[in-house]
Amino acid sequence: MLRTKTCGELNSAHVGQTVTLAGWVDKYRDHGGVVFIDLRDRYGITQVSFKLDTASEIQEIAQELRHEDVVQVTGEVVSRGEGNINPKLSTGEIELLAKTVVLLNKSRTPPFEPRGETLPNEELRLQHRYVDLRRPALQRNMILRHKLTKAVRDYFDNLDFLEIETPILGRSTPEGARDYLVPSRVHEGSFYALPQSPQLFKQILMVAGYDRYFQIARCFRDEDLRADRQPEFTQIDIEMAFVEYDDILDTVDGLVKAMVKSARGIDFPTPLPRYTHAEVMEKYGTDKPDLRFDLPIANISDLVGDSDFGVFKNTVEAGNFVRGLCIKGGADKYSRRILDNDLKGLVGEYGAKGLAYFKVTDGKLDSSIAKFFNDEQQQAIIARMQGENGDLLVFVADTWKVSCAALAALRNFVGKDQQLYDPKAISCLWVVDFPLFTWNAEENRWDAEHHPFCAVRPEDEGYFQTDPGKIRAQSYDLVCNGYEAASGSIRIHDPAIQQRVFDLLNITPDEAERRFGFLLNALRYGAPPHGGIALGLDRWVMLFAGCDNIRDVIAFPKTQRASDLMLGAPSEVDARQLRDLHIKLDLPEENA
Amino acid sequence: MLRTKTCGELNSAHVGQTVTLAGWVDKYRDHGGVVFIDLRDRYGITQVSFKLDTASEIQEIAQELRHEDVVQVTGEVVSRGEGNINPKLSTGEIELLAKTVVLLNKSRTPPFEPRGETLPNEELRLQHRYVDLRRPALQRNMILRHKLTKAVRDYFDNLDFLEIETPILGRSTPEGARDYLVPSRVHEGSFYALPQSPQLFKQILMVAGYDRYFQIARCFRDEDLRADRQPEFTQIDIEMAFVEYDDILDTVDGLVKAMVKSARGIDFPTPLPRYTHAEVMEKYGTDKPDLRFDLPIANISDLVGDSDFGVFKNTVEAGNFVRGLCIKGGADKYSRRILDNDLKGLVGEYGAKGLAYFKVTDGKLDSSIAKFFNDEQQQAIIARMQGENGDLLVFVADTWKVSCAALAALRNFVGKDQQLYDPKAISCLWVVDFPLFTWNAEENRWDAEHHPFCAVRPEDEGYFQTDPGKIRAQSYDLVCNGYEAASGSIRIHDPAIQQRVFDLLNITPDEAERRFGFLLNALRYGAPPHGGIALGLDRWVMLFAGCDNIRDVIAFPKTQRASDLMLGAPSEVDARQLRDLHIKLDLPEENA
Repeated sequence: MLRTKTCGELNSAHVGQTVTLAGWVDKYRDHGGVVFIDLRDRYGITQVSFKLDTASEIQEIAQELRHEDVVQVTGEVVSRGEGNINPKLSTGEIELLAKTVVLLNKSRTPPFEPRGETLPNEELRLQHRYVDLRRPALQRNMILRHKLTKAVRDYFDNLDFLEIETPILGRSTPEGARDYLVPSRVHEGSFYALPQSPQLFKQILMVAGYDRYFQIARCFRDEDLRADRQPEFTQIDIEMAFVEYDDILDTVDGLVKAMVKSARGIDFPTPLPRYTHAEVMEKYGTDKPDLRFDLPIANISDLVGDSDFGVFKNTVEAGNFVRGLCIKGGADKYSRRILDNDLKGLVGEYGAKGLAYFKVTDGKLDSSIAKFFNDEQQQAIIARMQGENGDLLVFVADTWKVSCAALAALRNFVGKDQQLYDPKAISCLWVVDFPLFTWNAEENRWDAEHHPFCAVRPEDEGYFQTDPGKIRAQSYDLVCNGYEAASGSIRIHDPAIQQRVFDLLNITPDEAERRFGFLLNALRYGAPPHGGIALGLDRWVMLFAGCDNIRDVIAFPKTQRASDLMLGAPSEVDARQLRDLHIKLDLPEENA
Repeated sequence: MLRTKTCGELNSAHVGQTVTLAGWVDKYRDHGGVVFIDLRDRYGITQVSFKLDTASEIQEIAQELRHEDVVQVTGEVVSRGEGNINPKLSTGEIELLAKTVVLLNKSRTPPFEPRGETLPNEELRLQHRYVDLRRPALQRNMILRHKLTKAVRDYFDNLDFLEIETPILGRSTPEGARDYLVPSRVHEGSFYALPQSPQLFKQILMVAGYDRYFQIARCFRDEDLRADRQPEFTQIDIEMAFVEYDDILDTVDGLVKAMVKSARGIDFPTPLPRYTHAEVMEKYGTDKPDLRFDLPIANISDLVGDSDFGVFKNTVEAGNFVRGLCIKGGADKYSRRILDNDLKGLVGEYGAKGLAYFKVTDGKLDSSIAKFFNDEQQQAIIARMQGENGDLLVFVADTWKVSCAALAALRNFVGKDQQLYDPKAISCLWVVDFPLFTWNAEENRWDAEHHPFCAVRPEDEGYFQTDPGKIRAQSYDLVCNGYEAASGSIRIHDPAIQQRVFDLLNITPDEAERRFGFLLNALRYGAPPHGGIALGLDRWVMLFAGCDNIRDVIAFPKTQRASDLMLGAPSEVDARQLRDLHIKLDLPEENA
């Protein structure tokens, strides 16, 4: 090794020892007779002093050291002395008095200082990712990611799960508009597809008897990218045989506990709370509630149907809903202007036609529309909302769907705006019993809420004939801090039930065979009851890192336009390569 | 869980307990009043007995159980009694007396029995991989693979390595004829490429200060497939900063020790022996010698140049070589017919024009050509070859290259044919100091032996001007049982040396920039000395599994024609998908 110690390990116990360090010049200061440099490596920073009355070649090198030069220094560990101790550094009690120095590699002036105070724009940083990755925040994230995946693997290994690699070169499915395709050279005119998930493979592995599978799996989705998506992403993929859905939830509870322990060093309380889909929609208006704060939605439809306030009255008469939030102490926090503009605008984005609000003052409702509610109604509303003097009550009167979406958004806004939670807190919950089907009004058909392999709650099988919208799936989402952090289900292992689902989705036997033939075949040859789940690893690292940019937890991420700015990918390729792959470009200007 | 125990854990200690098992019907026997089934899961096999005088629904189900049906059985663990103990099974002392049984899933008659005695052809097995993967051999291989990768990760984690994921969607390089390409939807006419290795990324990570990196990385190569290659394969990828090449070798020695410990439970002796490239070519004729057996090549050119045997004499006079093997006790093992036909044919495949041979009899050479060597020459040859009475000496007289290739092949043949080694033995060695360049006579130019980033032995830098063929790279291969099991090098971190290598390879600055621009850029911003290595994981699993078909260590492998027979991949895709990706097919019949 070109060093005997790292830049993070020396302290006063090493004083008097001769050691060799190697690393990058983080800072340099020329104090006349002495040059000081902060030498940096992955493990820390050590101050090195070069006395300029020593050998002249040391002088020469030391005086020319600049940011990001790579040097090897041998010297004696000496105490810094009282006044010069740097309590911020683990090595702050000592410095290395250089005896010999080797300039291992001179650096050009870097495009930005990786430890500078101002961050240049992301494009420049992604172009020079080898400098950007030196930033302490990114380094911490990469180390966190390593530790977290290690903890995940240890957890599953202890439980007799097998990590099994599934193919990256797979098969496209007809609806695979989001598949990345790979032309085959050997099979002219044919294509592989990169997997959007290992879903079908992990089910096959259960059929094959592997009993407990996991994989930290790369997945691909060619979609228009939002801030928190990447064309390639990583998921913790899990499948188990001979289980019921509690078993999966228990297993993942333990996994979350292990991850929190690894990332934060604390014992996270489990089991994680479990809510039905119906419950969270009622109480939080969304299937991804952020439970770092409470602020539940309350329904006052039954209280206001016979009020004199036309908007509420008409809403209830039409079979719709009046629901709202009680913002504790909110009466003097949001002015009429903000309520009528900003907050009304916010709920408007989700389709709500208006926002009604009241202060609670002297035990009564207080607002321009309070007069439309008699005393009894006012008291009932305040009681239902658990309102107290000084609270602000806000209401949306609309369809169930719109009131859910609008109030969920408003709830998130208020939670953040009123700092109702510690941003570093982690709050998880299970949402279970999703509907199996949702009605697609535009296309006048049923769609699968998750995918067509979710098992049905046995007690709901009767609804296939009568009311498919009521069928609950044996599915579950894990929600953390308002994000979907995992999603899964018990799968159908009975070909007859599978057929009923396909029938309802209008998937003909031919089409089913074409799209999922190999899975259907597998299910016929001894499929055990099984189920699984997948957790988005990138999202979990973000959660523990406390960062909100997915590109900060991936070593070599792509931009929102799916470009790798360092590599310059994607790029044009040789015409010969395309010919070998039996394809040609189909660009507007190339069409005759 | 649908079981309280697995099929692998019950023994006489459980007698009297009521337990529930779930699994597959492995065998069934109807003995009149009792039906016996062997119930199988990943953990083992348990015999279940159904007495037919119990409840009639148990009778009904039990009598109809067939191969690969999935059942859940609750019953009492009972002792089998002296005469019926099966010592081959860990559960052989007990059986489960069924009280209730649930047919979880009926299986169609499987296309073959996963535990049958005859193996159907591989095509049928790959089509029904969910049945094939139930075979005990494949299951053992998958479990071995899991354990081995776990041991690898634990080893590196203990040494402060970070596992860092590198992109699958990368950039094609102009010589990337073997790149799999992925058309971009967002960037019309542009393509990603799947990585042949994370080489450039891991070097970037060293420049970025990550110090010690590893990854179990999926790699892709679109080449005509040989028996032991797959279009996608997995490598254990390693890179370290501030190291010299001994440090990499020491680190991998420890890794091999950890892998052998995990797979075989034994302490493998390290350090692994290290040979120079020149040494192994001299002694074994190949840079991938199988050292499970000795059988070295000896060179007798200096002894036979003045013999009367024209072939040897002329060979030596032309500056070529007479080299051979001493097959201990071989005199009566290979008949003249075999020597003149089979073995001569074998060396002929490698370009050798003939095979000369002698028995050692009464301390002298014995063959039709022995007369061309005088006593002194005979004694010198026998001494050089360490021959004894009853040995067979075989010689090839040819160029250095042909004598190496021919004798290496002959050596492998004899080693196997004479069973000179235990096929389960593992024998590893390092081969170091490969030449940096090899002369490509066809194209009249120098080629890089590994890749153009290998560092040069400092003492050989003078040869750039005078004799590039003599420059030794700081490179190293790990060879196991005659296969290349790892390959790596210290990398060039000095842009000036990198330029000299490019110059010699006739890579112009423009071309270098186009092909490796981002790496060259990175090297300019503070690259530490660094090096690394990659081990083929599939090959290592094969080694420990003792199998010689790479498809037996991969859960979902592709055929030699790069097809996934279960998925039916690659496949045709919708015209709309191609339009979205701005490509069209370029097939003979579609050209106007």
